[in-house]
Amino acid sequence: MKLSQIGELSLVDKLRKRFRTRARGLILGIGDDAAVIASDGSTLITTDMMVEGVHFDLSWITPFQLGFKLISVNVSDIYAMGGIPHFVLLNFAAHGNCTQQFFNDFFDGIEHALHTYAVSLIGGDISASDKLMLSVTAIGSADAVVRRKGARIGDRIYVTGTLGDAACGLELLRKVKRTVDLKKGGRYRLPLRWQTVVPLLRRHLMPRARDSANIRAYATAMIDISDGLLIDLGRLCSESGVGARVRIPDIPLSDALKQAAAVLGLSAAGLALSGGEDYELLFTASPRQKIDANCIGEVTRSGIMVLDDAGSRIHITKKGYQHFAVQG
Amino acid sequence: MKLSQIGELSLVDKLRKRFRTRARGLILGIGDDAAVIASDGSTLITTDMMVEGVHFDLSWITPFQLGFKLISVNVSDIYAMGGIPHFVLLNFAAHGNCTQQFFNDFFDGIEHALHTYAVSLIGGDISASDKLMLSVTAIGSADAVVRRKGARIGDRIYVTGTLGDAACGLELLRKVKRTVDLKKGGRYRLPLRWQTVVPLLRRHLMPRARDSANIRAYATAMIDISDGLLIDLGRLCSESGVGARVRIPDIPLSDALKQAAAVLGLSAAGLALSGGEDYELLFTASPRQKIDANCIGEVTRSGIMVLDDAGSRIHITKKGYQHFAVQG
Repeated sequence: MKLSQIGELSLVDKLRKRFRTRARGLILGIGDDAAVIASDGSTLITTDMMVEGVHFDLSWITPFQLGFKLISVNVSDIYAMGGIPHFVLLNFAAHGNCTQQFFNDFFDGIEHALHTYAVSLIGGDISASDKLMLSVTAIGSADAVVRRKGARIGDRIYVTGTLGDAACGLELLRKVKRTVDLKKGGRYRLPLRWQTVVPLLRRHLMPRARDSANIRAYATAMIDISDGLLIDLGRLCSESGVGARVRIPDIPLSDALKQAAAVLGLSAAGLALSGGEDYELLFTASPRQKIDANCIGEVTRSGIMVLDDAGSRIHITKKGYQHFAVQG
Repeated sequence: MKLSQIGELSLVDKLRKRFRTRARGLILGIGDDAAVIASDGSTLITTDMMVEGVHFDLSWITPFQLGFKLISVNVSDIYAMGGIPHFVLLNFAAHGNCTQQFFNDFFDGIEHALHTYAVSLIGGDISASDKLMLSVTAIGSADAVVRRKGARIGDRIYVTGTLGDAACGLELLRKVKRTVDLKKGGRYRLPLRWQTVVPLLRRHLMPRARDSANIRAYATAMIDISDGLLIDLGRLCSESGVGARVRIPDIPLSDALKQAAAVLGLSAAGLALSGGEDYELLFTASPRQKIDANCIGEVTRSGIMVLDDAGSRIHITKKGYQHFAVQG
């Protein structure tokens, strides 16, 4: 059964029944001209797109994974402001030949993410389109917002988790060249064990946004790492009017990344510095604070300086991903 | 100059400077992971997409008109809830070959709409894409929300403005087959005066959302007419658990529509009943209220009945636009 045989109104009706919710603060969900929420204080709002052929390739990612990732990407922005996510609205544009199975699997992934982050789907739009085009708006709240601006000279720079895994997962997918069931496992031609590969693939296919609950009270500035450490650190520094010194040996790398990068002939540190889509948090805090995250450097007066294992300054060329990137 | 020669970061920076605002209630606008607004009471949120080749054809609509329309479509949903629009977030995905001129003209149209509706652009996302893909999220407030649900048997049914004009404008554009400067005028082959044609084209190309300020205190149920009178009346009735009786001679038609429909060989009433994108308001109110809008019928127990000039019930086949429409 294809979407063109079902009709938009019927699809909306199905979603409305499926995602009916009595979330706290929700006055009116899916089904009217707008959703209505009760709000009191600071409301955070962010929106992000995912476009087929640009952000994802359906020969590599399943609709379930895609649905999960779409919510994660937006929730990550709410966490990065020191907020708590509450609601999402979803725009879904697909070809009429899109199957009901695909549609259902995609919304299974959405639902899994909604449970994971304790958020509710409260509205959206469905449209026809040549290629799959998705966008989400996420809404959250914050007692005290943590901005990109706020880093002070002498603050330490921290990251959560490990970096470069998602970029390495993408490189692996380029070799695997098909969708992967992360639970079932599978065979492929690389000299790497499945247990090494699967966490890297997962970081790319189904990234889990990092909750800032234990960080927000201490962070002077914060951003999520979506376009790569260097580009996002550059943004934080630019907003704060400061510079940064980062030591490569202090950047947390997973064992899986080190093994896979070696086999792929890639630099693990390079992936960590410039690879996108880690969705970890990058933040600054006073050196007097005790912080449960990895310190990778310090805030300086100006410029971004990266030091290698020997303490020598290295020249940075690749700076991470941007759309319409200027070549040269 | 093309977008691929400018780069995403530079584009975002330009927009951030251009749309810097100190709107009331805005704590943080474009430039961080999320926008932050101060809210107190009911917050309305709605999102809508516009996809090239589905919602618009760039050989007929200018980027300026498209930008204006995109905001109007979303603001209309806030008005339709009895709300006041305050903020919008915008997702813009375009081909790398998209010119800076196109981009600038599009954002001129956005800016014109922001002024028209007194709303502020506070965030969004920019991406590459094969075709132009746009989505907007609009945020508003309401003292008392007017839902689709709430129509009572015996209520009168009202519409603002005139219906069918936008659909007729689209039919005219299909003949004109090019973009039209609505201010300058132009020549084309139809036996209709430019003064007749231009308001119809304008209703399709640059619809102005209808403010519900004078209506919301009286309306028992309300919806904006985006997919056609019949389909949107059907939605309002379905939500309210009621039916409707509509008299075709009471549906307000503009003289321009009547003249153009005659030349095009189309039924003006048919365009008014089933044509989409009028962005007028359809609402119900008690018969005891004095209402400054056109009464087109009454709320009944069940079913949608349409009466012609002679008072005879007519059979309805076309029901308006829906994506993935089931062909019968």
